[in-house]
Amino acid sequence: MNVGILGYGTVGSGVFDILRENKEVIAERIGEEISVKRVLDLRDFPGDPVEPVLTHDFKEIEADEDVQIVVETMGGLHPAYEFVKACLERGKSVCTSNKALVADFGPELIQLAKERHASFLFEARVGGGIPIIRPLQSSLSPDEILEISGILNGTTNYILTEMREKGADFDSVLKDAQALGYAEADPTADVEGHDACRKIAILTSLAYGKNVDFHDIYTEGITKITDRDIAYANQLGGKVKICGSSRKVGEQVSARVAPVLIYPGNPLYSVDGVFNAILVKGNMVGDVMFYGQGAGKLATASAVVSDVIEAGKNIGTGVPVQWTAEKLSLVPFGESKSRFLVRTAGAKSENESKVQAAFGDVEAVDAGFAEEYAFVTGEMTEAAYEEAARTVGTVINKIRIS
Amino acid sequence: MNVGILGYGTVGSGVFDILRENKEVIAERIGEEISVKRVLDLRDFPGDPVEPVLTHDFKEIEADEDVQIVVETMGGLHPAYEFVKACLERGKSVCTSNKALVADFGPELIQLAKERHASFLFEARVGGGIPIIRPLQSSLSPDEILEISGILNGTTNYILTEMREKGADFDSVLKDAQALGYAEADPTADVEGHDACRKIAILTSLAYGKNVDFHDIYTEGITKITDRDIAYANQLGGKVKICGSSRKVGEQVSARVAPVLIYPGNPLYSVDGVFNAILVKGNMVGDVMFYGQGAGKLATASAVVSDVIEAGKNIGTGVPVQWTAEKLSLVPFGESKSRFLVRTAGAKSENESKVQAAFGDVEAVDAGFAEEYAFVTGEMTEAAYEEAARTVGTVINKIRIS
Repeated sequence: MNVGILGYGTVGSGVFDILRENKEVIAERIGEEISVKRVLDLRDFPGDPVEPVLTHDFKEIEADEDVQIVVETMGGLHPAYEFVKACLERGKSVCTSNKALVADFGPELIQLAKERHASFLFEARVGGGIPIIRPLQSSLSPDEILEISGILNGTTNYILTEMREKGADFDSVLKDAQALGYAEADPTADVEGHDACRKIAILTSLAYGKNVDFHDIYTEGITKITDRDIAYANQLGGKVKICGSSRKVGEQVSARVAPVLIYPGNPLYSVDGVFNAILVKGNMVGDVMFYGQGAGKLATASAVVSDVIEAGKNIGTGVPVQWTAEKLSLVPFGESKSRFLVRTAGAKSENESKVQAAFGDVEAVDAGFAEEYAFVTGEMTEAAYEEAARTVGTVINKIRIS
Repeated sequence: MNVGILGYGTVGSGVFDILRENKEVIAERIGEEISVKRVLDLRDFPGDPVEPVLTHDFKEIEADEDVQIVVETMGGLHPAYEFVKACLERGKSVCTSNKALVADFGPELIQLAKERHASFLFEARVGGGIPIIRPLQSSLSPDEILEISGILNGTTNYILTEMREKGADFDSVLKDAQALGYAEADPTADVEGHDACRKIAILTSLAYGKNVDFHDIYTEGITKITDRDIAYANQLGGKVKICGSSRKVGEQVSARVAPVLIYPGNPLYSVDGVFNAILVKGNMVGDVMFYGQGAGKLATASAVVSDVIEAGKNIGTGVPVQWTAEKLSLVPFGESKSRFLVRTAGAKSENESKVQAAFGDVEAVDAGFAEEYAFVTGEMTEAAYEEAARTVGTVINKIRIS
């Protein structure tokens, strides 16, 4: 079986390494050898093991009928989209780790693959090294999915874990994370929740077989979380985690990405550091959780190679993926419900009566800051929360409770 | 697609229920309806929805060419083995939740299925509702498996969790667990570790493609664990869990089932109550953990139905399962290495010097019991531990450290 790789960056070279290093294990397991025939990159890599198979010309992969599976690890939308489309049109299967490509063109490329009896697979895109797409589509296929909830971004989980464990503030932890390579120079996509948002959109689309546009999902990052928020969370016996989640509500689905307070009974509670986890609730199987490294060169590359193997086992038929372009109906965010941990400026005596007037009965939380009044609300809609917070007028921050 | 079910007990009726209740979800997901054509049971179920399809005669399922998939949920070795074999010989696929059948006849039945281009699947057997076999065989297929470690039995995990949280002793917690239906009237298979042993034998066989005879795995239950052991574990900041584990050591594999002390850094640490989890370490993907309900009617039945769907998608070819009859070479147990938490009878002053003479440098642990001396050893083989313990002569109990 012959593979072409588009892009010899971090993940692409990881795929190349795994296919070389674990060649025997893989061949034993699937009964066939997998060879990398061509690797496309604009750069040269003198002395690197990739040299003999390196090409600068996409056509050499596209036109090569011996290459049945193409790995796309270039990143970016263009020319990745055009290259992937060209490969699928020729009946080649494509396995990708590309963030933007799957979120923007998933249903179209899945449909094209289906028409050509090929596969378009992207296990690495959602959970890094966590096997989630295949279990969601096969092991959990008897179940109606009631809820998906995940710690989907290693950078932000690392930052929140460090803030809690070291009592450090966001900015200094972010700087450390950048120095350690756990956060990018421009951390926006991670810390503002955009990466988690694309992931929960994909997971929700796969769970219900219809398309969720990630633009439609309410997304809140962690940049406003302070050491005080974490002190209140500690006081309540919980941890602040940024979660992407979606839940079936009648015939609709509600979805969001936001920092939430999680209690120890929730299996996500103990997922710390750069680890990710995805909790799925089925109507028959109950809670199932998948845990692993959400990123990292070899973990991500391993997920891509598992797709290559899956595609290889299904040459001529393709691996079916349930994700059509039909739009999934989302609950308007204002109607979705939570309990909230709310902090207001000013002492308890100044705030208590107006809080009660706006929010009804609340449970006060004292974390030792006399100049603030914090409380936990009952369950209420986002719209009702906004209205009540406006009425009170002194809200500093709020965190939803999982 | 037509299914026959052998045995309308807890799991069998769960499978029947799921196939009815989630009929639409399943049909939507796989593009075909699944109907239960016949259910075999010796009993009658007047008024039960199963009545119209109930039969007392296995031949009605065996000889029916419309029944392509048979679910075996009878339990026991005979006649389950004969029935399953007869079905496979006729080219029907079989999905089972049967404890003994898979452990005793796994490789033979897999081979028979392969010859007939049918499937023999048993997802429910290992992890109850936890998807593990398919991920192990597909998602982790690029990886060399370095280690598997699991909390594989809900009954014992519940007992140990309750002992820790309530400070209760083994016997009283076991009685409560029996009253709640979490433990069987005869709890031997659970509390002596036999159930976990069969599971780690299957997982290890699947990870390496060769057969591990469960009789060859050292197995220690939890009946000797006391509240004192748990007090020492607390003192060390850990929890006692009974783990089935196997690890690659050169070309061999070491395997065991035993109570172990687990620290918070280990993702298994927070798996409590009746939940199970399986941690797999791949040489590329790193740590991956699968978490869910290890038992329970619907969770187990959901796993069986996921096998039915998988078998249904692969009619005429069969789902390949890597597990041959060739024997996997195990490290002799005496050579496998651990650190140990050891309790000796008698005060520190009586024991310290002879302990040091036998075990070398150890780390003392004080949990407030003046009439005992407890300590943690360095890494040593089981044989060396036995020898040292014999020399000291006053050992009350030992727990390995994970």
